[in-house]
Amino acid sequence: MYTADITPTNDATLATQLDEAINNKTKPLGSLGVLELLAKQIGLIQRTTDVTLTAPAILVFAADHGVVAEGISAYPQSVTWQMVENFLANGAAINVFARQNGALLQVIDAGVNHTFGPRDGLIDRKLGPGTRNFAHEPAMSTDLCARALATGAALVDQLEGNVIGFGEMGIGNTTAAAALMHKLTGIPAAQCVGAGTGLSSDGVRHKQRVIEAAAAHHATVTAPLDVLATFGGFEIAMMTGAMLRAAERRMILLIDGFIVTSALLVAARVQPAILDYCVFSHCSDEHGHKNLLDNLNARPLLNLGLRLGEGTGAALALPLLHAAVNFLRQMATFASASVSEKSS
Amino acid sequence: MYTADITPTNDATLATQLDEAINNKTKPLGSLGVLELLAKQIGLIQRTTDVTLTAPAILVFAADHGVVAEGISAYPQSVTWQMVENFLANGAAINVFARQNGALLQVIDAGVNHTFGPRDGLIDRKLGPGTRNFAHEPAMSTDLCARALATGAALVDQLEGNVIGFGEMGIGNTTAAAALMHKLTGIPAAQCVGAGTGLSSDGVRHKQRVIEAAAAHHATVTAPLDVLATFGGFEIAMMTGAMLRAAERRMILLIDGFIVTSALLVAARVQPAILDYCVFSHCSDEHGHKNLLDNLNARPLLNLGLRLGEGTGAALALPLLHAAVNFLRQMATFASASVSEKSS
Repeated sequence: MYTADITPTNDATLATQLDEAINNKTKPLGSLGVLELLAKQIGLIQRTTDVTLTAPAILVFAADHGVVAEGISAYPQSVTWQMVENFLANGAAINVFARQNGALLQVIDAGVNHTFGPRDGLIDRKLGPGTRNFAHEPAMSTDLCARALATGAALVDQLEGNVIGFGEMGIGNTTAAAALMHKLTGIPAAQCVGAGTGLSSDGVRHKQRVIEAAAAHHATVTAPLDVLATFGGFEIAMMTGAMLRAAERRMILLIDGFIVTSALLVAARVQPAILDYCVFSHCSDEHGHKNLLDNLNARPLLNLGLRLGEGTGAALALPLLHAAVNFLRQMATFASASVSEKSS
Repeated sequence: MYTADITPTNDATLATQLDEAINNKTKPLGSLGVLELLAKQIGLIQRTTDVTLTAPAILVFAADHGVVAEGISAYPQSVTWQMVENFLANGAAINVFARQNGALLQVIDAGVNHTFGPRDGLIDRKLGPGTRNFAHEPAMSTDLCARALATGAALVDQLEGNVIGFGEMGIGNTTAAAALMHKLTGIPAAQCVGAGTGLSSDGVRHKQRVIEAAAAHHATVTAPLDVLATFGGFEIAMMTGAMLRAAERRMILLIDGFIVTSALLVAARVQPAILDYCVFSHCSDEHGHKNLLDNLNARPLLNLGLRLGEGTGAALALPLLHAAVNFLRQMATFASASVSEKSS
């Protein structure tokens, strides 16, 4: 079993030093709002007031899902590999946003139902041609799930930077994510499911029934990593492993939308301290995401009605991380700029 | 009287072309949320599907306010000129964020109560050492207000780019902005005032009473530009003029927080079509701002609890404008990338 040793970021002395550094900047107290909280969080993660962001990377994990046999997606399964080709050709939204905001983009075949062959820019970590259909059997064996976790961790070990964003592609994976959420939080399936890539309301109700039936079928499965093996996907499990390792290495974890957050949910059930390292980039329009963020007490940076996945929200939030670091590093203090402080 | 000729952006044929261009990109329909609306708005402003952003500039207008004599600010008036010095020394938040996001920053002395002398980087358009105290008399004459509008317009004429962000610095200017809002919208003063740079709740109530008394004192003033002259500031009036001219030139107007929005409110009462050109960068934590945005039917891009002014919200929103333009310019289409479309 994969394990990680994640330390909470609870250094009270450093927290006070960070508060002072932030409050001495030439601005009314608290007037940079969420950016001040973010700067403090980054300082606590990095154990210093001298915060920096180096070589941000966004890892996009792609895989297919056996549960598509239940008719739970608006798009055919072939779109998974077609979109991977689109990533490799730099034509997808995540390519555009990662390039714009200076993030290294890595695309990982975690288990797509397609033979790509050796391809420039594609990291082949294929664990199979997609998962099994969790409506009838576990999506993957516990052994394969452990391999996915370890594979994700090893990918993080190759990174040089201190910020990692997560993204995914996989037709059917909002169904897997909703099932994970339902099982691990107990929130009713109706509040976990959404339209995914564009289901009708009938389609969403069908998806909900598929999840409820599968949850009943696998009712005895309760341990977080067993739930992951039973309902997850190769891309989700690989993200869970990568997240655990990234937090262990004290990196900043930039969480994207619903599926990425479901991978984090599993990780947080294994190692709750991982949440100290997470920056929630946005609240997706996918119905379950807001409820899942609330369940994790997470406040997302952006609320732009995105529901695209791929790590697009993480890429779009990156400039706000830079802003948090830059104001703390570069702004003058009241003393250095000879600006009068507030009247008492 | 300064006039502007602003054309609504209501080309239905182009709107359809933009919808098609956006919907053909390799993503589920509507899945880029607000960024899709933004891309469409930019296309309508620029009258093309071939959208571009060139040389974004942020103009920060600084001025002092006679109404500070009423004790409505947590900081002394000298902070206005001290912060202008901080801008010139690159030490303020707006310096950091404008630099990070590639915006040209221009600092304008619209009427600060301080003699700077000739200074590199400071654009001297001083109309006086601050306004008069509107608790007792009009803040400025209508002639001076007309000069402020024309001066703002002329500053825009010197810009080379197609995006202009607005920022301001002026101790006391949330009081002026709240008075403008109260007079022009009829919203009760209690819903227009906020803590500004950090008033206590008693201070906020005092500020509210100052505004109510001034509104009663100047009860007969109702025409938008007369209201501007009576309650506004030199920086606010200059922004109003700059906004009118920028929209006339079909630029994208990036609106910052409460004070900037109050300048826009005046402009919109003169030329309602100006709103077609406005991107609302953020919702400030300053109490009145949300109500003012609602009054203008504006949906802000960011909601980060900022209340710093200076154009910081505009600078922070700039990457989202780039994202909107870049996805429309750079993403592949379903056809070009050979990605299957949604099942019917």
